[in-house]
Amino acid sequence: MPRTNEPGRSVSSRLLEILFAFRAEQSDLSLTELARETGIPLATVRRLVLELVGAGALERRSDGRYTVGLRLWQLGTLAPLTESLRTLAQPFMDDLYTALRQHVQLAVLEGQQAVVIERLSAPKAVGLVSQVGGRLPLHCSGVGKVLLSHGGADLIENVLGGRLPRQTSRTVVDPDLLRSQMAACRRTGTATVRGELTEDADSVATRIVDGEGRVVAALSVVVRTGSVTHQAALPSVVTSGLGISRQLGWRPGIRLRED
Amino acid sequence: MPRTNEPGRSVSSRLLEILFAFRAEQSDLSLTELARETGIPLATVRRLVLELVGAGALERRSDGRYTVGLRLWQLGTLAPLTESLRTLAQPFMDDLYTALRQHVQLAVLEGQQAVVIERLSAPKAVGLVSQVGGRLPLHCSGVGKVLLSHGGADLIENVLGGRLPRQTSRTVVDPDLLRSQMAACRRTGTATVRGELTEDADSVATRIVDGEGRVVAALSVVVRTGSVTHQAALPSVVTSGLGISRQLGWRPGIRLRED
Repeated sequence: MPRTNEPGRSVSSRLLEILFAFRAEQSDLSLTELARETGIPLATVRRLVLELVGAGALERRSDGRYTVGLRLWQLGTLAPLTESLRTLAQPFMDDLYTALRQHVQLAVLEGQQAVVIERLSAPKAVGLVSQVGGRLPLHCSGVGKVLLSHGGADLIENVLGGRLPRQTSRTVVDPDLLRSQMAACRRTGTATVRGELTEDADSVATRIVDGEGRVVAALSVVVRTGSVTHQAALPSVVTSGLGISRQLGWRPGIRLRED
Repeated sequence: MPRTNEPGRSVSSRLLEILFAFRAEQSDLSLTELARETGIPLATVRRLVLELVGAGALERRSDGRYTVGLRLWQLGTLAPLTESLRTLAQPFMDDLYTALRQHVQLAVLEGQQAVVIERLSAPKAVGLVSQVGGRLPLHCSGVGKVLLSHGGADLIENVLGGRLPRQTSRTVVDPDLLRSQMAACRRTGTATVRGELTEDADSVATRIVDGEGRVVAALSVVVRTGSVTHQAALPSVVTSGLGISRQLGWRPGIRLRED
């Protein structure tokens, strides 16, 4: 990763590298690990971490390791779409959960992945790979296929032209087949995924559209293969999705925008 | 606010000042507003904001104003306590909401304020001043009194010795009366607040305790004055709070720790 010698640029980019070294799979880090992870000298890491702790962006645990701080969480809640969309979608997701008793999740597009911004889970429902804040691949998850289909031609070509990891024996990785799935999804607004992300889970997903016709999120129900028929899940997912879209100002007849 | 001339220190603190200039009451800002807010020269603000946008920490809206970015939201979800506690508390909060149909909220202590980390709201329930990520005063909110009571002697003396804003005509601001309320709350684990934060709302709150006896959060139900009796709300709030505490490893007989 390029680093310049201009002091300002270097320091600020280092600060951000330290922050973004924290990830779901490594949510607590020691100074040594941060130095190794970022390639920044330990003394500099120590100084910058001290500053981040002072600002509340990081917190020091009693064992000396560092985690993301509550103040950074608060700052994150100001991200548009997430908190407002979550708040607005919550009653619809509650109702869908009440009706189906299966995982319900809401995701948005970030880069070339889907990010889960809200999730309701049944204690006995199928094991789910995602968590709130977690990422799902676009090509083989229900919410991912919906978001990819409506993300514009450039995104589709970038994703289909890149690496398409095979998550299970059923993962569709053929670009032509995926392209035709994308076209179908744009037509119906829904995607059904059977065992492509995890062997024993199916996902039924639909788009969430705002008042200007933009697809801003995807809503899905994840069920154990065979436990709920597609025919039973799809209409309720679609109606919940339309309900959320209406709250965002969408009305029948508004044309989809793709940008 | 002190600034040194040491280039490293100055740049990193400026970056953090720009980030934390975003607040609930000003969640989108222009470059000019950021410069005014932080006292940092516009050219520097422009350069640092560009870097923050590049890292996904901020996002540029189509109208040229800036907001917190989705990637920062994701980073925030890694803060311990918030996401794990929210996930774990969610079914109990759902059930409490089903039973009472009133606002249910979960808050943790941050500095000298309570931060709401989860909230469920009834469409027809009383207007609530808080939102997820929002802050409530310790001395006159239900969750605040619970958190303050268990926050240790230093915190209590700092808060009671400082400014105690009178939010309504019913806000208790007398330090001696507050001290006796704190003692009662430590004894019972609950606090009932009537019209102290907003005239027409009462709050019934209880503590959440972890397996080591630490009070890590407070749970409350906020009701329109007179709509639900204290006698009806309190037992359900307490049982829900105990249920969440048990999930955190608490068991009857574990002594409360105060640090």
